[in-house]
Parts: sequence; structure tokens; C-alpha cells
Amino acid sequence: MGNKLCDLKDARFILYEQLNVEELCKSERYGDHSLETFEMTINAAEKVAVNDFAPANNPGDIQGCTWNNGKVKVPDVYHKPFQKLCDGGWFCVHESYDVGGQNLPHVIDYVCKQLFFAANHSLTGYYGLTHSAAKVIEVFGTEEQKKKYMLPLYAGTYGGTMCLTESQAGSDVGAVKTKARKNEDGTYSISGGKIFITGGESNLTENIIHIVLARIEGDPEGTKGLSCFVVPKIRINNDGSLGAVNDVSCVGIEHKMGMKGSATSVLAFGENGNCIGELLGQERNGIVTMFNMMNEQRLLVGLQGLAQGSTAYLHALNYARERKQGLRLSKKGLGQEPIIVHSDVKTNLLWMKCYTEGMRALILYTIYCMDKMVVCKDDADAEEKRKYSDIIEVLTPICKAYGSDKGFEVCVKAIQVHGGYGYCSEYLVEQFARDSKITSIYEGTNGIQSLDLIGRKLNLKKGDAYKAIITQVYETIQEALEVAELAPYAKELSMYLSTLEEVSDQIKTLKSQEDLLLTYSWAQTYLEIWGDLMVGWMFLWQSVIASKKMRETFKEDHSDTVFYIGKIVTAKYYLGTILPAVTGKFQAIKKSDRAFLEMKEEYF
Amino acid sequence: MGNKLCDLKDARFILYEQLNVEELCKSERYGDHSLETFEMTINAAEKVAVNDFAPANNPGDIQGCTWNNGKVKVPDVYHKPFQKLCDGGWFCVHESYDVGGQNLPHVIDYVCKQLFFAANHSLTGYYGLTHSAAKVIEVFGTEEQKKKYMLPLYAGTYGGTMCLTESQAGSDVGAVKTKARKNEDGTYSISGGKIFITGGESNLTENIIHIVLARIEGDPEGTKGLSCFVVPKIRINNDGSLGAVNDVSCVGIEHKMGMKGSATSVLAFGENGNCIGELLGQERNGIVTMFNMMNEQRLLVGLQGLAQGSTAYLHALNYARERKQGLRLSKKGLGQEPIIVHSDVKTNLLWMKCYTEGMRALILYTIYCMDKMVVCKDDADAEEKRKYSDIIEVLTPICKAYGSDKGFEVCVKAIQVHGGYGYCSEYLVEQFARDSKITSIYEGTNGIQSLDLIGRKLNLKKGDAYKAIITQVYETIQEALEVAELAPYAKELSMYLSTLEEVSDQIKTLKSQEDLLLTYSWAQTYLEIWGDLMVGWMFLWQSVIASKKMRETFKEDHSDTVFYIGKIVTAKYYLGTILPAVTGKFQAIKKSDRAFLEMKEEYF
Repeated sequence: MGNKLCDLKDARFILYEQLNVEELCKSERYGDHSLETFEMTINAAEKVAVNDFAPANNPGDIQGCTWNNGKVKVPDVYHKPFQKLCDGGWFCVHESYDVGGQNLPHVIDYVCKQLFFAANHSLTGYYGLTHSAAKVIEVFGTEEQKKKYMLPLYAGTYGGTMCLTESQAGSDVGAVKTKARKNEDGTYSISGGKIFITGGESNLTENIIHIVLARIEGDPEGTKGLSCFVVPKIRINNDGSLGAVNDVSCVGIEHKMGMKGSATSVLAFGENGNCIGELLGQERNGIVTMFNMMNEQRLLVGLQGLAQGSTAYLHALNYARERKQGLRLSKKGLGQEPIIVHSDVKTNLLWMKCYTEGMRALILYTIYCMDKMVVCKDDADAEEKRKYSDIIEVLTPICKAYGSDKGFEVCVKAIQVHGGYGYCSEYLVEQFARDSKITSIYEGTNGIQSLDLIGRKLNLKKGDAYKAIITQVYETIQEALEVAELAPYAKELSMYLSTLEEVSDQIKTLKSQEDLLLTYSWAQTYLEIWGDLMVGWMFLWQSVIASKKMRETFKEDHSDTVFYIGKIVTAKYYLGTILPAVTGKFQAIKKSDRAFLEMKEEYF
Repeated sequence: MGNKLCDLKDARFILYEQLNVEELCKSERYGDHSLETFEMTINAAEKVAVNDFAPANNPGDIQGCTWNNGKVKVPDVYHKPFQKLCDGGWFCVHESYDVGGQNLPHVIDYVCKQLFFAANHSLTGYYGLTHSAAKVIEVFGTEEQKKKYMLPLYAGTYGGTMCLTESQAGSDVGAVKTKARKNEDGTYSISGGKIFITGGESNLTENIIHIVLARIEGDPEGTKGLSCFVVPKIRINNDGSLGAVNDVSCVGIEHKMGMKGSATSVLAFGENGNCIGELLGQERNGIVTMFNMMNEQRLLVGLQGLAQGSTAYLHALNYARERKQGLRLSKKGLGQEPIIVHSDVKTNLLWMKCYTEGMRALILYTIYCMDKMVVCKDDADAEEKRKYSDIIEVLTPICKAYGSDKGFEVCVKAIQVHGGYGYCSEYLVEQFARDSKITSIYEGTNGIQSLDLIGRKLNLKKGDAYKAIITQVYETIQEALEVAELAPYAKELSMYLSTLEEVSDQIKTLKSQEDLLLTYSWAQTYLEIWGDLMVGWMFLWQSVIASKKMRETFKEDHSDTVFYIGKIVTAKYYLGTILPAVTGKFQAIKKSDRAFLEMKEEYF
């Protein structure tokens, strides 16, 4: 068994056999890279994740963050691995050379991130958002802002945050009350309070750069009146040295179910009337600016959910191979065998394997579409570029919500496989479950994601966007129909797919107020259906490749052969035993029972 | 809104309108009771639960238990509510007068327990097992044992435990290694180690009575060689006073995901060769003796899971009525309304309401069958008594596993409804989720429950046992077909039911080794199907009653009318929108895909 974070054999199969990411190296953008540089990067990430991140995970959960008089202390064990992130330039490996990056494809970065996330979810809270803050400045900032803020963020010298949420403005972001008043020198005085700010204060970095959503005095209510500001914890002099302390204070941190090493902060801006921020991008364009960060974050959060599931699955698998209880069904008498031989445990492990591998493939595929977009030429490949953009748009809420939900469920199953030990802290899986739960909430709750899918993405380009995906699935089905062993599964997936189209058409024709309410009540189920089918697609795709490779490389004891056969059997199990449950979800929507509409508030 | 623990209006509807529990008062056993005494009891329990148990819940989670040199300190706030339990005689209200009880029906006790469990899961760990230890002595003990041990246990003066699990013997209970050697005076010297012992040591009671599974020297291996022993922490003199300290030591307690106020202990028996126990019941009959406790515990654990779900749902409902974000779909512009108006939140709340009310009804129905058995005359009502016994046998694993799984899922949804606040400790729902998770593990994991259902209960009396339930459901369906509004739902339930019979027959005909392995891989799905349909049955039954009562008592603003309509709409939502998903589960089994059998261990 390799590391207990992420099955890299599976990840490499996705990269090099399913997606053929080496093709990217033919492009100008990724031309300096090769299989060798990809592998060097992944191996380096694995080393940091295993040797530095993972050992700090449980100690960080136990020690947690402490707040004292405005200062936050992160777990002591976090400083060393965080420094490794900075030393390795991990904040921007997939960014271009000119901002300090290494020009690597996003999909390679995502494999590395999966390792880091799996190894220490709390610690990566300080890492993902730091990149996002840098990125949004790269896209919307002035040259001066890039120099002052972006470069040290990409280097990890400063930390970064996203400050949207206020106590009255969570999902309802338009209700933000934080104010900005323009000063004579062009800067803005910021005042207001923000909550749930990941990494809002810490002793990990010498400075923190907050990206803050606020309303310039006199601007309209709602989202359209919001602007975006760069607000440093410590102001930065023109020569790049640290200047005066800005008027941003951390008035407390939350006590949470998990992610205890991550400082979820309550921030007060301008309590003494002296908080200075700079406008980022255009006035009243704050939501667009923020959503640039948000979309990246949503895919990342799906990856976070998957990563906790991935490590939980590998811990459970390891436990099931070592823990002995009872005899397999065919043996009589006394004695004990590893619990993996028992149908119940094996069923749980297979279920976990399916969602872990299926979601890994789907998320890596989605981010790979980003790389494909990057290498598209604006003119010659305009149509292809649009196609990839559409696919990303539709798959983002699915990766976020389904990835985080399934990731959590895999963690919960891992507790179950461990029995009583799973409930005890020393076996770690209960921490994975607690840590992963947040992924269904932050960066837009999974409810919001499902509304995004059914309310917006389904209608994107009048439905052409989601049909671009369906077309691709039918292509896979065609290939699978050629493989005798896979043909029956391909036929079934094809059937489910046409039901998805039928149900989607049904939903799109509903237009009255009541119909819309009813439609939205199916939103979670509809997103689940998409998730179920997309995972099915990944498995069918993978099994077509595996069955070809298996025949080419067949040697009974060979590890590749074992892997390919395992992949095919897993795919068949998912498609033939797990996926049929989707028919019940279709039923629920097709029936369109209207009791939901009759349910008044006072009936609860 | 009443208490935030359990909707007592719903519980009373089940007791007095669905089950007609007052009928029990016509029997000799319950003849002293009436609606008034039932209500007095429930009201008294609500008062203790709300005023004493609930306020100690979160402080208990924060302080937890501490172990120091063999001594365990429970959270300071536990002593007062525990004393209230003792003062109120709550350990044995449903036991007969001659053991200090109040002769109340089990079903009334269960409503009280639901309040206690919901208010403070950890604290009730010291309560449920104390009763079980007393009960097993009542059933199997000698008169002397009853006097010495049972009476103070029923009074709560002593605590009680169940000591089965050892590090190598969890689900595989036959692997128990703890030894017993017969002494000349008829007592036994016990030696061995037990783990995961709830309340194994504490400073709540002056003594603790352990019911210990051990093997008498020379007895055969496996479960058939096990005997049961009463092992006090402090020996008891013949006059009932405390004597010498017995050789039982607590060598540590577990750090857990939740239930932190409950001391999950590691116990060492006879480390100094001086641990004395008394045989309980017959030699080599230990498993039968223990299962007397175990069956009671399994139903109780289902209730525990439900109870956490119940309080989580009421907290989420309360939050959704108070928390304002955005406007309902039909309103345009700015402003904020309670989030309960949003389809997504309302869907979550309805889902929670369905499982909370459905499982409440199913568990109370099952325990009510126990009361019906109690009042059956051995000769005249022999057949009826057998019928109730069969129903209890089949429903016990369903109540335990489905109740605990759905209870946990309801807690998780409650976190979701709270958004970011749900992840923060001060909103309590995350504690409910952590506390409830154990219910899917202890007293036989839910995997074991599903194997019990598909492997044993399905074949009990060649299938007549489960058919006794199906017959009852068809009776309800017949009644519902007479009510126009309910008829379509009744028809569908009837269809699902016949598919259940078909699938059950399919399973029963599978007999080869491979077929059995495959069957067991469906065990969890099969149990879920039963749970889905039993909840559907409860709702159909309840809606038949509600629709009759609604017509009788109709006044638009009247709280009863609102309740009845709410019940009918909830039932329709469950039957018409949630339950159809069961068709997908049937599909999965009916397809009988065999990939599971192809999956070798090395493919993981």
C-alpha cells in the first residue's frame, strides 16, 4: 500500500491513460513540460504531504487555534509544513512564470492539492485562499497592486482571505452592509464587520491581505451596488516593506465541529475609523470580481471533500485488511480472518472506492477542461474553447456539491468500517468526517449549488451547455458498446441518460410560479442524478481504456493487470449495482407530486 | 413552539389516536392507569428533560469525562440531573410495582426516554444500561441477587454496565477471552480485559454492577461456551451495605467524536487475582442471557438515534423561522424573509419532519407491541402473542439501524439548514450529529442489523414472521383506499409492498455459497427498503386517522385542524415524493449484477 492519502496509481491512470495530459505539452503554454516534470512535481508534493502535512493533522485538531486579545495562534505544528509550501513555491505552481509560477497544468496542480488536502484539511485553509486572493489581484488589479500584494501572496509570505459574509449576509450576499468611503488620495475608508473568514487572522504569515466586499457610500442596495477592495492587515510601503498597522481587528474565532486548526475569524474593519483599502477592479463590479475567486473555490471545495473521502477510504481499507473478526461465509468453525472478507464490509469498501475514484476522475476531468481552454487559440479554436467553458460551468456545481457530499459520506462509511474504533479519535477517520463536513457549506451551500444547476446552468445557452456534456457521454457509450463485457452497462447508462434529457426537458417547460417552486424542491435530487450519471460516465470511460490496456499488458500477477481488472470490476459494480438507484430519483421527479406546494409554514 | 426536544403533539397523536394506548388500561397489568397518569408521567419527564437534562448537554460536551489514576470524573453538571432521575424513579417506571416500578406501559416510558435522550444523549448512557443490568438480573438472577443488585440498580443508586466487547471480540463476540474460575464457595474468579464499556467507571453512583460475558475454564470455544456473571465494583455485604473493593480497575477512557460526557471505559478484571463474580443464569447460557439485554438495547438505540434527529429537526425548524435571508421566489426586489420560505430549506425541513415523525411512529408502534404481548393471556391469546413477538423480532433490526441512520442524517441536514452557523458549536446541531453517530455502531453495528434482517428474520418461521407485518400494512392500505385523497398513495404503497414480497422471495430462493455472498451484499439496501416502506406505512395509517379527525373537528384556525392537515400533507409528501426512490433500490437487487463476486481483495 502506498500513502494513505490518495491512490496515485489511480490518479496517474486518469492523467496519463484517460485524459492523456501529456498532449498539453505540445502547446506553447505547457511546452516546457513533460511526463518527467509532471512526475517530479507529483512526487515532491507526495513527499511534503506525507512527511510534513499528515503528521500535523491530528495534533492540529487537538491543539486547535487560540484567540487572545485579537491575536490568533495556529497549532504549533503548522509552521513547518507551511514553510515547506512556501519553499516549494506551491501556491502558484500552475501560474505563469512571470508571476513566479511554474507554468504547470491545472490538472497536475490538482493532483498535488488532493494530496495536501487529504493530509491536512485545516492547514490548507491558509493555502487555497491565499492563492485565490493573489489570483483575483492578478486578474483585476493594477500593476502596482500586483507588485505590492500579488507577488508576496503567491510566495506565501502573506496570507490571503475572501471577506464576503456578514451576520445578515450569508447566502444573501446582496445584503452586505460594510461601507467604503472614498478618500481624497483615491483610497477608501472601510467600515463594517465580517464573519466566517477563513484565515482572517493568524501567526503563520507576516501580513494578511483581505479581499473585501463592501458598498461605496451612495451606491445602490443589492449585489449591483457592491465593490471589491484590497485591505491589508499591515499597510505596505511603496518599497514593499511593511508599514503601519491597518485598522482591521480580529474580535474572535469560532469553535467548530472540525477544521479546528483553521482560524474562522470575526473581523472588524475600521472600528477606529482608520481602515484603508484600495479599490480592486471597477466600482460596483465587486460581485463579478469576487466570483472570479468563487468559481475557482467551488471546484477546489469539491476536491477538498473528495480528498477527505480519499484518505478516509484508504484508512478504512488498511484497517479492513488488518483487523480480524470472524470467518468468511464459506468457512465453518472458529478463527478470525481480516474483515475485508465479510460481504458487509466489502460492500462498504466498494461503495467508498466507487465514489472516491469516480469523483476523482470527474474533478480532474473538469479542471483538465480548464487546461484545454488555456491552450485553445482565441480565433482558431473559439468553438472548442466555448465548449470547454460550458462544460466547466455545468460541472462546477456538481463537482462542488456532489464531491463534498459524497466525500463526507465516504468518511462516515469509514467510521462504520472501523466499528467502535472509528468513533475514537486515535483512528483519525472521525476527524476526517468532522473536517469534511464544512465542504458542503462554504463557498455556497450545496443547496445553492443545486439551485445554480437547475435554475441557471440547465438553461445556459438554452440548454446547449449541458448538452455538450451529454454528447460526450454518448461518445463514450458508443465505444463501450464495442466491448462485449461492457455493452450491457453502456446500454443502461444510455437509457438513464435519455431519462435525464427527458426530465430536464420536463423541468424546462415548467414556468408558472408554482411550478418553479416545485422545480426548486427537486433541485438537490436533480443535482444528485447528474452526479450519479457523471460518475457512471467516468467509470464507463475508464473501463473502456482499462479493458484495452488489460488485453495489451496481460500478465496474471502483474500489478498493471491487477489494476486494470480491478478498475473494470469496480466500474461494473458501480454501473450495475449502485447506479440503478438513480431510477428511483427519476421517479420522484417524474411523478411531480404537488404536496410540497400544499405545505404551509404553520404545518411544520 | 413547545420544547425543542420532541414534538409532543405528534407523540400524543401516536399514543392516543394512532395506537389507542388507553385500551391497555383495561388490562389487569395496566389497570391502575389512565390517560391522566400517562399525561402526568410525560409532563413530569418533559420538565426534567427541559429544565435539568438539556442545560447540561453542551457543558457536558465541552468538559467531557476525565480519567485520573483509575478514577473517572463525569462532567460536573451531570450530578444534578442524574439525581432527578433517581428521585423520580425513572429507571423503572415501566417495571412492576414489586421491583419498585410504576407498572406503566413501555410505550409511555419510551416517550419519556425520547425526551431524556434528545435532551442529553451522553448522560442517558448512565441510565439506559443501568436499567438493562437490573432487568437481566430480574429475569435470570436468584432472589438474593435481585435483592443485592437489582433493587439498587432500579433505584439508580448503583450504575450498571454490559461488558461484552474485548479488543479481539467486537462483532465476533464468540472470541471473548475473559476467564472465570469457579471458587469453592460457588463464586467465580474473573480475569480479562473489556473495552468500550459505557459507564464502566464514574463518580455518579456509589457502586457499579458489571454484567460480564466470560468463559468458565474448560468450557468450549465460541459463543456456546460463554457464561454471564455479575461483577460488582464494590462487593456488597449480606446486609446490603458496601463491602470490600473488588478487583476491577478502569485503565483508561476513550477520546471520542462525541458522547464526550459518557465514560467509554477500558476495564481490567482480576489484575491482582482477586476479582469475584457471581454466575447469572445458567452456565454456558451467557449469550442467551446477554441477548435479553441486547434486544432491549437495540430498540433503545434506535430511539436514541431518532431522539437526536428529533431535537436537531426542531432546532433547525426554529432557526429557519427566525433566520432571515433573501426573499421568497414570488417577491421581487430587496428585503429578507425567514429562510423557511425558500424551496431548498423547506425541502430539507420536510425531509427531516418525515423521518422524525415516521420513525417516532414506527419505534413507538414496535414497543407498543411489547405492551400488547404483556397483556396477552398465555392461553387465550397465544396466537396473538406470537404475532406481536414476530413483529417485534422483525422490526427490531429495522428500528435500530434505520432509526440510527436516519437520526444521524437528520442531524446532518440540520447542520445544513443552519449554514455556517451549523458548523459552529454554539448552535448545538453539530453536537447532536457527533453524539448520534455512535448509534449506528454500538449494540451491533448497522451492518450486523441488516444481516440479522436478511439472514435470520426474513426466514423466521419460514417467512411467516415478516408476513405478519405485511398483512397489517395491507389492512391499512384497504382503509386508505376508501379516502379519495389518499387512495393514489395507498395504491402505490401496495405496489411497493408486492415488490418487497417478490424481492424477498427472490432472496429466499438463493442458496448457493456465491448466491449467499451476493445476498449479503444487498443486506443494507434490503434493510433500507424495509425502513422506507415501514415509514410509508406509518404515514398512510396516520393520514387515514388524521383525515377522519380533521373532518370531525374542522375549524380553520384550530390548532388540531392545522395539525391534522399538516400530518396529511407530510404523509403525501413522504409517500409521493420521498418514497418513490425505493424503486431504484428494488432495481439494484432485482438486477442481481454479479460484479461483487468478481471483486477480489487485491483489486482494492
